[in-house]
Amino acid sequence: MLKKILLFGFAGLAVLAVGILIGHFGIEQDNSPKWVRDLSQNVDESLIKKFIAEVDNMKIQENLRKLTEVPHMATTPGDEATVEYMLKRWQDKDSGLDAAWREDYRVYLSFPKKDTPNTVTVVSPSNAVLFKAQEKEKAYTPDQEDPEVVQPYAAYGPAGHARGKLVYANQGKVSDYELLNRTLDLSGTIAIVRYGGAGRGAKAINAAPFGVVGVLVYTDPYDINDGLMSDENETYPHSWYLPPSGAERGSFTSDFGDPLTPYLAAKKDTYRIPEENINGAPPIPIQPIGFGDAQALICELGGSAAPTDWQGSFPCTYNFGGPGFRDASTYRDSEVKLDVYNAGELRNSTNVMGVIWGSVEPDRYVMYGNHRDSWVHGAIDPSSGTAVMLEITRILGEKVKSGKWRPRRTIIFGSWGAEEFGLIGSAEYAEEYISKLSQRAVAYINVDISVFANATLRASASPIAQNVIFTASKQVNAAGSSSVSVYDNWLKYFNRTSPTYGLIPNVGYLTGAGSDYAPFIHYMGITSMDLSYTYDRSKTRARIYPAYHTAYDTFDYASKYIDPEPLKEAVKSFRNAAANLDRVIHSSDLLNETPLKARRINDQLMLLDRAFVDPQAFPNKYAYRHVIWASRTSGVATFPGLADAVEKARTTGLKEDWAEAHKHLSIVTQAISGAAHTLTEVHQ
Amino acid sequence: MLKKILLFGFAGLAVLAVGILIGHFGIEQDNSPKWVRDLSQNVDESLIKKFIAEVDNMKIQENLRKLTEVPHMATTPGDEATVEYMLKRWQDKDSGLDAAWREDYRVYLSFPKKDTPNTVTVVSPSNAVLFKAQEKEKAYTPDQEDPEVVQPYAAYGPAGHARGKLVYANQGKVSDYELLNRTLDLSGTIAIVRYGGAGRGAKAINAAPFGVVGVLVYTDPYDINDGLMSDENETYPHSWYLPPSGAERGSFTSDFGDPLTPYLAAKKDTYRIPEENINGAPPIPIQPIGFGDAQALICELGGSAAPTDWQGSFPCTYNFGGPGFRDASTYRDSEVKLDVYNAGELRNSTNVMGVIWGSVEPDRYVMYGNHRDSWVHGAIDPSSGTAVMLEITRILGEKVKSGKWRPRRTIIFGSWGAEEFGLIGSAEYAEEYISKLSQRAVAYINVDISVFANATLRASASPIAQNVIFTASKQVNAAGSSSVSVYDNWLKYFNRTSPTYGLIPNVGYLTGAGSDYAPFIHYMGITSMDLSYTYDRSKTRARIYPAYHTAYDTFDYASKYIDPEPLKEAVKSFRNAAANLDRVIHSSDLLNETPLKARRINDQLMLLDRAFVDPQAFPNKYAYRHVIWASRTSGVATFPGLADAVEKARTTGLKEDWAEAHKHLSIVTQAISGAAHTLTEVHQ
Repeated sequence: MLKKILLFGFAGLAVLAVGILIGHFGIEQDNSPKWVRDLSQNVDESLIKKFIAEVDNMKIQENLRKLTEVPHMATTPGDEATVEYMLKRWQDKDSGLDAAWREDYRVYLSFPKKDTPNTVTVVSPSNAVLFKAQEKEKAYTPDQEDPEVVQPYAAYGPAGHARGKLVYANQGKVSDYELLNRTLDLSGTIAIVRYGGAGRGAKAINAAPFGVVGVLVYTDPYDINDGLMSDENETYPHSWYLPPSGAERGSFTSDFGDPLTPYLAAKKDTYRIPEENINGAPPIPIQPIGFGDAQALICELGGSAAPTDWQGSFPCTYNFGGPGFRDASTYRDSEVKLDVYNAGELRNSTNVMGVIWGSVEPDRYVMYGNHRDSWVHGAIDPSSGTAVMLEITRILGEKVKSGKWRPRRTIIFGSWGAEEFGLIGSAEYAEEYISKLSQRAVAYINVDISVFANATLRASASPIAQNVIFTASKQVNAAGSSSVSVYDNWLKYFNRTSPTYGLIPNVGYLTGAGSDYAPFIHYMGITSMDLSYTYDRSKTRARIYPAYHTAYDTFDYASKYIDPEPLKEAVKSFRNAAANLDRVIHSSDLLNETPLKARRINDQLMLLDRAFVDPQAFPNKYAYRHVIWASRTSGVATFPGLADAVEKARTTGLKEDWAEAHKHLSIVTQAISGAAHTLTEVHQ
Repeated sequence: MLKKILLFGFAGLAVLAVGILIGHFGIEQDNSPKWVRDLSQNVDESLIKKFIAEVDNMKIQENLRKLTEVPHMATTPGDEATVEYMLKRWQDKDSGLDAAWREDYRVYLSFPKKDTPNTVTVVSPSNAVLFKAQEKEKAYTPDQEDPEVVQPYAAYGPAGHARGKLVYANQGKVSDYELLNRTLDLSGTIAIVRYGGAGRGAKAINAAPFGVVGVLVYTDPYDINDGLMSDENETYPHSWYLPPSGAERGSFTSDFGDPLTPYLAAKKDTYRIPEENINGAPPIPIQPIGFGDAQALICELGGSAAPTDWQGSFPCTYNFGGPGFRDASTYRDSEVKLDVYNAGELRNSTNVMGVIWGSVEPDRYVMYGNHRDSWVHGAIDPSSGTAVMLEITRILGEKVKSGKWRPRRTIIFGSWGAEEFGLIGSAEYAEEYISKLSQRAVAYINVDISVFANATLRASASPIAQNVIFTASKQVNAAGSSSVSVYDNWLKYFNRTSPTYGLIPNVGYLTGAGSDYAPFIHYMGITSMDLSYTYDRSKTRARIYPAYHTAYDTFDYASKYIDPEPLKEAVKSFRNAAANLDRVIHSSDLLNETPLKARRINDQLMLLDRAFVDPQAFPNKYAYRHVIWASRTSGVATFPGLADAVEKARTTGLKEDWAEAHKHLSIVTQAISGAAHTLTEVHQ
């Protein structure tokens, strides 16, 4: 049943993506006289209907089965098997693709030792082991017992042995450790923290200055299982909830891409920075554990009760720790011991690429990507996306092979390697091909995961891509419905009121680096979108994908010190330019005008995101160049550099911090003005 | 007589530039059927001949007279008068230009105080003034007596009062001060140095760590007057040689652009760095003086004789200084006193812009620029260039006005302000419009100075622009000749043997930041050229425009430590891509193919320089992003980052310096690979 609904979701995403790929990017020309017709390759509705009719759920299911036969963590034999499977599919002359190939990079990954697993124990003063956390998750199906399943670990966390009294540090934010530090001496302690609130690596980076020697991290049922204190009867395989032994693996560095070759493609001979210079890696041992084990530790802690917003779903009061366990506990006076054996090594990671050349504008690329590596079997993350991508290439390829259709622009497919270690495959690809991609890529579409039943579309995108998604989503019916469109269903779950268009689906922001869109939008400024099917947020409060909606608030404070007038002027000129370009598009008689006019206007649209790229904006944030969508620490969604700087200045009140805020105001103003120049009619 | 030959040079440059502006950028299409003909706008030879015939020497002369009526140092009333003159010319509806406007920036300039001139004196122990250097140059014509003539000074040099024993420090290089420091205690001394060998500001920056408290700088007759020890009968106005009181003014910062707003356009409200953070400004007082005064000081110095290569053209032995003067001198025991009153202020600097819109590709810009500000009257630098630019706009404008002709691509003219203070006008323009210019500029042509009689063309350019200059220079006759082309004349003076083309004129490199081409090629990666008419180098050894010719030498050393194989591979793939693109161009039947094909190939060519731009390549060199043409300190012409790093590693032998060299090898390799991707046929 679950599987059936899932497959509905897959098919829905496949037809939506087909619509986007062959649909409207920028403006199209009308279709006579003949030479204009040859150039225009207009998308007609019947063509889209034909494509949609050909999406085959059984084929997607078969793709998924093949892709998830064995665990395929990045660079393992299981991963290489998926590389070969994709290559076989795409290089088959019946595939219709014009070419497919592999791109290999030599990247630095971090793994636990198979023969010496990382351990977390409670040890008495006499060194008796009183408790041992599960080394591996409990298997509920035979394939989960595969010896290739990697134990939960913190990739890029250092090897080391730490032992100390336990404290509970909420989410491991700086403010969490500061609060603890007011009443406790944290030096020599082990902190247990829950996921959320701070980046994975940051939980250890924030801890170290307080003298904390090791960190345990787990997922609280409050954050992931809707607060159910979730015994095995309530969780997977009985529901979609996380079981007690489930532990989130992950990359614990702060930058994306191969950590030893920032800004450079990781080829065999490429210069590599020393391992100790990896940016944002945890300085102290850190290990993820299941919430079953976390409960066994946290509910035994002594000390005062933690504040209300630190409490989770365990049936006990979360105390700070004495430090250490309470006197009534069997662990009284015992310490937590953390033994981590992670080690880094250079490994071969592969992207599999496929291409269908455009008939009219082969040098304009619409790109579609999905990572291939998983932490374990990856049925959902990422193979659901890969299965859909394979079905899309099958359908488009068949049409190309038949000789009846070819896209106007080139379509490039990317199956990225080593995403789970920090978007490594896509980032290395971006670094290697930045010149060409900056010059030619019209847009990048990322499909990572298609999740959960009762699905609705979830889309994050550059604003310029919003209409492309709206148009495509209106052409496809929602899962299981013959009358409700994906658009209407989406509108029901995620919506907002636009001053111009009224109630429309809420397209999210591409902030952060959650998936492979990051190198495209942040590093290269290429218009991007990230698509998935997701769960009903009205029925769950699972902690992912928080929305941000309070841009500009901080300007009330900044205006005391800095004149925001030039920013307002820049925004105004940008608005005028955009409105004017819209008029040009709608008043143009492209039928009788030079075909270069359509190209020119399309170029203006294509390059709009590029105008917001400023390599000087964030000198300390690797690969973040987009002044609107870069990552931030403050809670404000837009203008991250400015928001962070203003927040800091508000906190410190220092003149030099206000100067930095002023600098970011100038950077943002200049970028918006540049974008306005890009959109302004070219005769200006 | 001199004037007449000069004007021949001007006219030659005007017709050459016209040829380039309306001539071949990239490939053109053939001219039937009609729709292709409409798009192609082919340049026919007769059109070029017609343009050439219309160049009017008398009009250039009149332009020059108007432009040089008064001194027009940047932002002074004289400068504003030239702004208004250019605007009047270009905005006149009879001009034929489609539009002309001013762009104002608020920039930080540095001036001496009019009522308190900077002074250089020799002061006895009893404070008697024994000698005073001339505050202003001697006037030989009435206009040189204009009170607006600014006294010689070091722009951005600090105000201050320094007094100490004099030493002669050759060119003020680090190695010069080191040599002096071996036998002398430099602390508390004043150093006198000659121009050349090190940047202007560097002469003071290098001095300060040795305890030197002030610097005098002059131009030795050896370096500028062919070694003649040049009394007033031999120099201007009797010849083109520099008179004894002539002193070179200049900007003494190391970066270009407004020094307070790096990377940001200097608008009214733009964030400004603190003045004390200006990069590369002299830390101690420094003042230029004439060589007449320099002789009076140097020939009195005590101490040992300086080495042969420190000797100049004065009729005495150049000694190091005791420190101070020799015992037999009337200045014995006296000190040199340097009183500098320079002060910085925010001033309004103006670029004047003019445009002729392209008929077919209005969103592709061919740009032509020349700075407008001078240190004094600027008859040669820059008004010779401005006079030529005005004649070019007159000729093109008349054709546009007649309705008979319009260029295929847009031509933008820029009359830059405040170049003498560090390319400020062009750099601020680049910072403000980088998005649009990066996307649309096909090429930038810079014409700063047209110098001296017996002129030959001197051209520095991106290699991709070489053929454009060759083609245009073959269509124009050399000054005063009816049979020898500019090309043939040029070939006589500057030539090299190309392995492919045999003997051809030697096109120089656009390294460094000598004029307004720097923001275009270095900061934005736009194909650029710098044109002028220059003197016969076989007859003079004046110190400007040194050539560099020893690329790759240092690889012998690097290969001991680093495998250069990937670089060779990248160069090979670049060569193959270039050769292949050449084949595509020559085998294409553009007549019967889509017009977008020509556009696509032109885009590949246009974006080639952009592919070499890497914002991460030189984190400590403001605005230098082009990995081939950036500035360097080592003597090797190409791959500046790599050459500097290898030279440093060779000197120190340190492992970390070789690691840095390896990093630059990777950066260069990646850039060349990226350029190859740009040129590779788009179906690959």
